[in-house]
Amino acid sequence: MAGRLRVGFQGERGAFSEEAAYQLCGQPIVPVPFTRFEEVFAALTAKSIDRASIPIENTLHGSVHENYDHLLRFDLPILGETSLRIVHNLIALPGVKFSQVRRVFSHPVALAQCLDFFTNNPQVERVPFYDTAGSVKMIADEGLMDAAAIASTVAASNYGAHILKKSIEDDRRNFTRFFLLCHRDRHAKLRAKPAPGEPSKTSILFATRNTPGALFRSLSAFALRDLNLTKIESRPLRGKPWEYLFYLDFLGQETDVNVQKALGHLEESADLVRVLGSYPKTC
Amino acid sequence: MAGRLRVGFQGERGAFSEEAAYQLCGQPIVPVPFTRFEEVFAALTAKSIDRASIPIENTLHGSVHENYDHLLRFDLPILGETSLRIVHNLIALPGVKFSQVRRVFSHPVALAQCLDFFTNNPQVERVPFYDTAGSVKMIADEGLMDAAAIASTVAASNYGAHILKKSIEDDRRNFTRFFLLCHRDRHAKLRAKPAPGEPSKTSILFATRNTPGALFRSLSAFALRDLNLTKIESRPLRGKPWEYLFYLDFLGQETDVNVQKALGHLEESADLVRVLGSYPKTC
Repeated sequence: MAGRLRVGFQGERGAFSEEAAYQLCGQPIVPVPFTRFEEVFAALTAKSIDRASIPIENTLHGSVHENYDHLLRFDLPILGETSLRIVHNLIALPGVKFSQVRRVFSHPVALAQCLDFFTNNPQVERVPFYDTAGSVKMIADEGLMDAAAIASTVAASNYGAHILKKSIEDDRRNFTRFFLLCHRDRHAKLRAKPAPGEPSKTSILFATRNTPGALFRSLSAFALRDLNLTKIESRPLRGKPWEYLFYLDFLGQETDVNVQKALGHLEESADLVRVLGSYPKTC
Repeated sequence: MAGRLRVGFQGERGAFSEEAAYQLCGQPIVPVPFTRFEEVFAALTAKSIDRASIPIENTLHGSVHENYDHLLRFDLPILGETSLRIVHNLIALPGVKFSQVRRVFSHPVALAQCLDFFTNNPQVERVPFYDTAGSVKMIADEGLMDAAAIASTVAASNYGAHILKKSIEDDRRNFTRFFLLCHRDRHAKLRAKPAPGEPSKTSILFATRNTPGALFRSLSAFALRDLNLTKIESRPLRGKPWEYLFYLDFLGQETDVNVQKALGHLEESADLVRVLGSYPKTC
């Protein structure tokens, strides 16, 4: 394991964030699970891990505002992005057939995303469990032969279980986008230099006062330089000195001359501008 | 119960959506629970219910994209909005003291939002359950005297339980915004006429092609008329004819002359414009 990157994520071993970590790093890693997102950011800041894999938005559930808050507070740069389809699989111990399954354990959110499966299989009881990957672990630990779990492919292989039915989720348009974060002082060295013609993306946060046209003026910094936006989202803030925080992604990298000029222009009208990072566009 | 509004919502009796329904209607109602959001929209379309109370965004978890999809598909107008603080209470049967509590049941999301409480009370075991309100019902049905549940105030009163500890959630900035929906053909009659000087809000969806400056041009329709935006969010769409869908809220109502002009202007550059409704601003 020596020399392998230690990559932190929130959740149990086999969580989707761990799957994203493999995809983001493209090499063998040491996955390091944490209970809370904040602990992942704190561990990366303290350098007890080398990277962090964190979910930032989901096509069904929206942006993970909590992680944008941590990005603002901890100031850890984004090294890469990836998008993972959230596939729910029916998983059981080796030798167990589907006809034997009477109970299915999983996190209630996963159970709720597989309602069609349960409607079509009324002989099977839904049993809520603490965690998707944890439900596979429990079935393996207890040696249950009449039960299955709903979890990721990684969870199945982690606990030596096998997949009875692939992709039993109701909505296949369930994708989560993840960021890979690194240490602030390593970013310049680690950052992939994009090949000419390969698109980069830059993520920023900025705040404006709540006056008509404030956002319009802010966006002019990008529109007047033909910079293409790929995400914009406002977030009203309670009990904060500014009224609106915006998340913005655009094509281009921080070191491009026109991006530098756009950011300078934006700073003239915004109360706060924070560049979260530039990285190769893969979503 | 005759004459009372039948208000549909997703979840068990005592869910936060039911609490929002009381707040939105301001009168006695007949709450009608459904398993899926889609069923709530279908029931309102079929007129088997009179109103629907649906969550649209949360300050920690972002927009509920699924419900924006249903708003686009079912075309049911927004009659009102409200914001509810998500307060998690520790709830037990009458006569049970905190010192007796050994197990706490709730939905894993609620358990995860009360980690400080569990850290400070290590004698208490966390037990995941299917639903917040459902965990109160189960404790009442089973007559458990060593257990408590984490759920809303409405859930406590619904099942004759009492609140042992109020507001045990880690983050008090946990608010959910709800829409009240009504039948399309009743909207004009039901719509509250705002008093002069009372602000209204209008929610729209629109789509633009992915070209630099497309959003900037769209927003000029509002900025040039001094219409103040209160929410903007982009959503990339997979496998759809347009590339980006935007959610936009602004101050003003659909019948205002400058709003009519702004919407006409927006239609010149957008591929799709859908007004979801105008309603008194309360969030």
